[in-house]
Amino acid sequence: METERSLREKCGVFGVFGHPEAPLLTREALLALQHRGQESAGITVATGGELRTVKGMGLVPQAVPEGALSPLRGTAAIGHVRYSTTGASELQNAHPLAFLVRETPVAIAHNGNLVNAVRLRRELAEAGALFQTSTDTETIVHELARRLGGPDRDWLTALGEALLRVAGAYALVLLVPGALYAARDPLGIRPLALGRLGPAWLVASESCAFDAVGAAFVREIEPGEIVRLDAGGLQSARLPAPRRALCVFELIYFARPDSQIGGISVHEARKRLGRRLAQAAPAEADVVLGVPDSSLPAALGFAEASGLPFELGLIKNRYVGRTFILPSEGERRAGVRLKLNPVPDVVRGRRVVLVDDSIVRGTTARRLVEALRQAGAAAVHLRVTAPPYRHPCYYGIDTSLAEELVARSGSVEEVRALVGADSLAYLGLEDAIDALGMGDGFCHACFSGQYPVPVGEAGGKRSLETGVVG
Amino acid sequence: METERSLREKCGVFGVFGHPEAPLLTREALLALQHRGQESAGITVATGGELRTVKGMGLVPQAVPEGALSPLRGTAAIGHVRYSTTGASELQNAHPLAFLVRETPVAIAHNGNLVNAVRLRRELAEAGALFQTSTDTETIVHELARRLGGPDRDWLTALGEALLRVAGAYALVLLVPGALYAARDPLGIRPLALGRLGPAWLVASESCAFDAVGAAFVREIEPGEIVRLDAGGLQSARLPAPRRALCVFELIYFARPDSQIGGISVHEARKRLGRRLAQAAPAEADVVLGVPDSSLPAALGFAEASGLPFELGLIKNRYVGRTFILPSEGERRAGVRLKLNPVPDVVRGRRVVLVDDSIVRGTTARRLVEALRQAGAAAVHLRVTAPPYRHPCYYGIDTSLAEELVARSGSVEEVRALVGADSLAYLGLEDAIDALGMGDGFCHACFSGQYPVPVGEAGGKRSLETGVVG
Amino acid sequence: METERSLREKCGVFGVFGHPEAPLLTREALLALQHRGQESAGITVATGGELRTVKGMGLVPQAVPEGALSPLRGTAAIGHVRYSTTGASELQNAHPLAFLVRETPVAIAHNGNLVNAVRLRRELAEAGALFQTSTDTETIVHELARRLGGPDRDWLTALGEALLRVAGAYALVLLVPGALYAARDPLGIRPLALGRLGPAWLVASESCAFDAVGAAFVREIEPGEIVRLDAGGLQSARLPAPRRALCVFELIYFARPDSQIGGISVHEARKRLGRRLAQAAPAEADVVLGVPDSSLPAALGFAEASGLPFELGLIKNRYVGRTFILPSEGERRAGVRLKLNPVPDVVRGRRVVLVDDSIVRGTTARRLVEALRQAGAAAVHLRVTAPPYRHPCYYGIDTSLAEELVARSGSVEEVRALVGADSLAYLGLEDAIDALGMGDGFCHACFSGQYPVPVGEAGGKRSLETGVVG
Amino acid sequence: METERSLREKCGVFGVFGHPEAPLLTREALLALQHRGQESAGITVATGGELRTVKGMGLVPQAVPEGALSPLRGTAAIGHVRYSTTGASELQNAHPLAFLVRETPVAIAHNGNLVNAVRLRRELAEAGALFQTSTDTETIVHELARRLGGPDRDWLTALGEALLRVAGAYALVLLVPGALYAARDPLGIRPLALGRLGPAWLVASESCAFDAVGAAFVREIEPGEIVRLDAGGLQSARLPAPRRALCVFELIYFARPDSQIGGISVHEARKRLGRRLAQAAPAEADVVLGVPDSSLPAALGFAEASGLPFELGLIKNRYVGRTFILPSEGERRAGVRLKLNPVPDVVRGRRVVLVDDSIVRGTTARRLVEALRQAGAAAVHLRVTAPPYRHPCYYGIDTSLAEELVARSGSVEEVRALVGADSLAYLGLEDAIDALGMGDGFCHACFSGQYPVPVGEAGGKRSLETGVVG
Repeated sequence: METERSLREKCGVFGVFGHPEAPLLTREALLALQHRGQESAGITVATGGELRTVKGMGLVPQAVPEGALSPLRGTAAIGHVRYSTTGASELQNAHPLAFLVRETPVAIAHNGNLVNAVRLRRELAEAGALFQTSTDTETIVHELARRLGGPDRDWLTALGEALLRVAGAYALVLLVPGALYAARDPLGIRPLALGRLGPAWLVASESCAFDAVGAAFVREIEPGEIVRLDAGGLQSARLPAPRRALCVFELIYFARPDSQIGGISVHEARKRLGRRLAQAAPAEADVVLGVPDSSLPAALGFAEASGLPFELGLIKNRYVGRTFILPSEGERRAGVRLKLNPVPDVVRGRRVVLVDDSIVRGTTARRLVEALRQAGAAAVHLRVTAPPYRHPCYYGIDTSLAEELVARSGSVEEVRALVGADSLAYLGLEDAIDALGMGDGFCHACFSGQYPVPVGEAGGKRSLETGVVG
Repeated sequence: METERSLREKCGVFGVFGHPEAPLLTREALLALQHRGQESAGITVATGGELRTVKGMGLVPQAVPEGALSPLRGTAAIGHVRYSTTGASELQNAHPLAFLVRETPVAIAHNGNLVNAVRLRRELAEAGALFQTSTDTETIVHELARRLGGPDRDWLTALGEALLRVAGAYALVLLVPGALYAARDPLGIRPLALGRLGPAWLVASESCAFDAVGAAFVREIEPGEIVRLDAGGLQSARLPAPRRALCVFELIYFARPDSQIGGISVHEARKRLGRRLAQAAPAEADVVLGVPDSSLPAALGFAEASGLPFELGLIKNRYVGRTFILPSEGERRAGVRLKLNPVPDVVRGRRVVLVDDSIVRGTTARRLVEALRQAGAAAVHLRVTAPPYRHPCYYGIDTSLAEELVARSGSVEEVRALVGADSLAYLGLEDAIDALGMGDGFCHACFSGQYPVPVGEAGGKRSLETGVVG
Repeated sequence: METERSLREKCGVFGVFGHPEAPLLTREALLALQHRGQESAGITVATGGELRTVKGMGLVPQAVPEGALSPLRGTAAIGHVRYSTTGASELQNAHPLAFLVRETPVAIAHNGNLVNAVRLRRELAEAGALFQTSTDTETIVHELARRLGGPDRDWLTALGEALLRVAGAYALVLLVPGALYAARDPLGIRPLALGRLGPAWLVASESCAFDAVGAAFVREIEPGEIVRLDAGGLQSARLPAPRRALCVFELIYFARPDSQIGGISVHEARKRLGRRLAQAAPAEADVVLGVPDSSLPAALGFAEASGLPFELGLIKNRYVGRTFILPSEGERRAGVRLKLNPVPDVVRGRRVVLVDDSIVRGTTARRLVEALRQAGAAAVHLRVTAPPYRHPCYYGIDTSLAEELVARSGSVEEVRALVGADSLAYLGLEDAIDALGMGDGFCHACFSGQYPVPVGEAGGKRSLETGVVG
Repeated sequence: METERSLREKCGVFGVFGHPEAPLLTREALLALQHRGQESAGITVATGGELRTVKGMGLVPQAVPEGALSPLRGTAAIGHVRYSTTGASELQNAHPLAFLVRETPVAIAHNGNLVNAVRLRRELAEAGALFQTSTDTETIVHELARRLGGPDRDWLTALGEALLRVAGAYALVLLVPGALYAARDPLGIRPLALGRLGPAWLVASESCAFDAVGAAFVREIEPGEIVRLDAGGLQSARLPAPRRALCVFELIYFARPDSQIGGISVHEARKRLGRRLAQAAPAEADVVLGVPDSSLPAALGFAEASGLPFELGLIKNRYVGRTFILPSEGERRAGVRLKLNPVPDVVRGRRVVLVDDSIVRGTTARRLVEALRQAGAAAVHLRVTAPPYRHPCYYGIDTSLAEELVARSGSVEEVRALVGADSLAYLGLEDAIDALGMGDGFCHACFSGQYPVPVGEAGGKRSLETGVVG
């Protein structure tokens, strides 16, 4: 599920307190989190009582050039990578967002989505509040500002009170001169981890960011937990947190395989899904291929459980940028080949199992099936390591292409016919949950329609768009 | 007074309502106002219920590239040119500033400076307000937002109430979908003019912006006047306005000679100053030169009144950018020559009167005198068309280099010795006011120390910096 | 003649040998020569046995960024500014051109145009020569390379032999590690001057470049002279040079007024033309205006001789870039106003003499006349300080718009009617030559059709284009 | 062998004749060849009798922006990707190189290296030739130009005669209006393939470029073959070609696994090397990992032959650019982790076989071994699918870091100790040749020191540098 990404994680966040190279360290960490957001990136550094933000459109190297960052001296910083609709004008909505709260500079970065942001904004506006963005994230800062009575008012308490007002999914970092706050929503829908590098504390959406900077993974930030990191160390507070509901798609598709989330390795989780899929939907075949890179572990698991050989039969061109635009429909087929090319002698004359983690519009799958057949495949059996994606996500996944999901309207047989495979099977929800071996602590609303946070307020698509941000 | 500009107008503003090419027309107008601010520029266009802003550092062509602007369709727009300390991070303080007031987008651009902004910000912050900039301009929008009770609340009235709260100098334009507001402070310290182009209404800091787009100058926006321009035409309201106090430096130095301000031509005003200076401080000389470009009309007036021949004896290299940085002190002398070069055979063997409109640090004057002598001048008599600048401005002139003003500490003789002229004379304040022939409706605090708006609140330099913006 | 420049000097050259800051000094000198070419610029520095070239499209600050130049250490450098048709692909033809001659790096920059380049290129190509550009300049280097027999072969002699092969106009600088050569064509059509800064030697198209870097003007490089500058000082050689034929347009229009060329000040030359014009073609008028900047000295001369007052009645917006493109024909009128705006109270009710140095298509003149009338002028008398331009130049002036010259087809009365002036007069050729007071040593082929170098070989427009370069 | 690439293919070439979208098709093909050169790229298009070149530093998307290319209309084009030392000034040596041969534009792009270029350049220079680059490639064009007697002289014959003069390795494409030539050296050291897309002919360094544009692989260009592609179809000529000597490193490391070279799939070749290595140097281990991406097929082959499980235990961050520069030595360790991160639960407690295709300085290998141990590996056995690299390459591989090759000076045991592995084994040359199953038609000079083309002329490192280009 590589060429046409429509199920996109919206953001990744990172924060560090107490490291002499905080700005560049944050940039390295964002590079490790780049898969969580590729359309804008930003870093805010606390430097001598001020906050300085560098952000821009594009990947981290473009958005936060090292030359712009390296002059900034500071031992605390936060960072963010993000998807957004394209256009330079969107830069104003890019994170971190910066504010002055009683002349104290505050920066915030957020992964997730609030479901009651529209109502909160309306109430704030009626009380005379000015907004600088159309983001749901800004409401958190307004609520915080209203709860800060004076210079000695406790920010940790005020932040907790503000978060009690908001509903939805969030993993957020908030920086002020002298302290860094991190918070995770009471259901723990979006992941957030705590790390350590010598005396410095770190928080990150995924543990792979800690590996990238040589830091150690300490533990997850718990659902509903708010931490304050400052010169005195770590201080923790808790919001009421009834149960866990980690986004299951983090394990299936979004997170990096070398991260661990919810106590297990993402790589291992995917191998388990592949193994279970081989048991639940075996295929008469000669070889197992995965769609690189995200589906390779699942393909390996499928191969192990099925006894079929695993092969690296699709080559991905690493140098093709994401923004390559094909000149005309007639050239479009070349475009797919440019990115994923079958290795002819792996495929020729063989019956192939092709393992993928999702089918979105079906276009990529159809072209891959066609390319495999042209390269000589005797049969192509498509196996998907997740249930069909059928319900919109209100907690931070980009569902802008939701109507295009073939699974929403089509039966499995219709999708099979569309993509031209000899057979097609999805992994069932119960099988997937069971295979992951972590009990029922998941949000699987996109598969089941069971929303752990009421989304009545989120309303229709219109108001969702208004409120969607990070 | 060209090479080292320290007495700088802070900003220029422009607005148009009801023209099909509003965005590009605004850009052309800002080019005509470029002399009022060369370090950032921005334009906001009302387009289909939304406001879109393009702004950046540098001159108008770089800051607002035509390619970024031309896709924006809209019949109303505002624009701003501005000085600021350099640095990309300052972009966030560049105008127009944009806000959401009850989900209505609002953009504002401001020339001038408020003297009670620090107190107003503190009060607003205590009530929970978030600020996005450190500008005094933002306080106006907060005050406005608090006075808008509902969707049918009258914005013109609310703006008037908000402006009653602020003190200082302002010529401002404020854009919302469907209407453009313009306002001028009760003393009329900063200029603001009203124009017409077919059915469209325009406002601009100077009338030369109307000429640039083929529009007609209608009248000045009166001191204390607030106008609303919308599909129904022009609506006007008034704040109490006791008397006029137009910044005299607009006529002496800042404004373009082809503008008219306060009822007279700026070019004519400068010729009058030059003529009066020839009467008040004649010189035994053979030829009169002006420092191009701003002092040429005054030099012509001096020549007329003195009967001496006027010559174009200093050539300005038009292609040298303002940001040219000399590699070393040793090369600095070459740097001044690069920009202004004497014509040897105009100067050789002659006694020269050099007319300038101000002396700041004295460095440029000293180098010009030296260059004229090296080119063979038999004597150099320096004549300045304004009194010595001795007091800081709190109403919108950049006084960041105020301590470097030679006139602040030095006597006329000391300055003369410093710059190496054979004689030096300034025009006296009474002579200047009298020569301008407009009565006493001026602010001349920078010469006289008589501040028309109490600046007690503006406090010392520290709080001035905090509150300074546009 | 400012807004629509079609009579354009093609290039300016500069060279320095023996200065520790040669690269930056060359850049400053090119800024002073920027009026001679605004579409590309380049500098080559001799640094440790190698030549390094920085060049680009646009004005000097963009084409040769200080940051790209300042790392280059070297005490000898050459530079060039140039007009060319736009387009990045033209960069390959931009000067300096660099070659390896027997592994010795050579760079050359050239102002002027050869008339036998097409034939020379053909002969060279038949002998197997490869060309890297379509410039006439490259033929000089090929001819040079063929005359260098060995490592100890004298380059000065070889260059002289090579130049004997070429015909046309040239002021050129040629840099190799250890020496800088400069040469001027036998008629001295294009100017070239020699300067001194401490122990360093300089050459430049105009003496104003010496002023810009604090250097002294020593003398002109003589027609037909070739100089070699190296650690041993200056060495000079001569080509046969029958007579002088300096381009008269250098004095009338191209050169900077603070330069001296052919023994007189350009500023003085223009005043003389204006004075003579007042005698030859007086006007019943109240005030004399010049088109800024190039025609102001002539207007001052006209005013002096006529006894009419000189006024600064047209204000030029200094910040409007040359590349401003008007969005639509309907806005074009605004475009002219943007750049040159009349001062109403100078003009109102008065009969105006408008002095210009050339009329090209007539569009600018027509718009200026119209703008003056709209500002209230009672009459507009147009006076041009040169004869009508009627013949193409083959020696280095851009004649790409030659067909559009109104003077080519129209009578004086037709041009007057076109531009809408009350009267129009040109200065006659004999009057112009006489007024300049330098005898008959001019090339005035563009006015008279008398070409001092036979241009039969230059052929029609087609081959001219092929051969045109610098 | 990913993080520190010192054994670098120098270039990739591509050409197409007869396709309406030749420019964009060439760009897509270069993207597929991007692994062969990542420091500059260029495309020349034949358009209406002219050649237009777009080239720049960096990867294809930056060096040849689609916007710069898409205006060019033409049905024939050539392209090139290249390594070079960094620095904008190197752009002049980037390919395609463009020349005018008797006013006919010619562009050439070259993969490989000539060993007699220094002598040829000297001879040409003595005959008066000018060079525009320091490349060996330019000598080919000079030799060609000297053999073109007239307009009807046969270019194919002249090119053949010119190539008889040069010695070394080359796969080259040469474009003139109306025809495209391609040639491969008599030993076929560098690969070159012929393809077809409808009526259009294509040539490419690797067949994967054909897949990228939907074209079919037809056959290899034979060693010593010169083809001419024009409107009349394909015409072929031959140089004397005694035997084959394909660069063995193309199969081991350089080429993309989905290409076929010399008759077999690169992917299959690498699996064979891995299988043979498992037989020749087995290891007591629990799991087999490959260094992504280039060593994964070999690791799969090793796993198959050894019966050990294959795992995806090293995760590569796809978003880390090649130019990432670590701020300080202290941060360097983080840098390696950023790019390749072990999956802890794959490695923990297991004995690991790590398969790589080369060891250069040993730094990356040492860090990988260390990272695997920190992730819990019980043992790390390093297996390399090629013999130690011990001799410089004179035929087009960048050997600039040759002295740093640990294998040059160190014994296998010394290298093992350096990288800290529990065991280390290389595949022997005979085993490698035998495993590839293509007979002895290889150049393996880098392993064996047996040079198929005498390199006496190439001389020492100094002259090699002078002559090295493409």
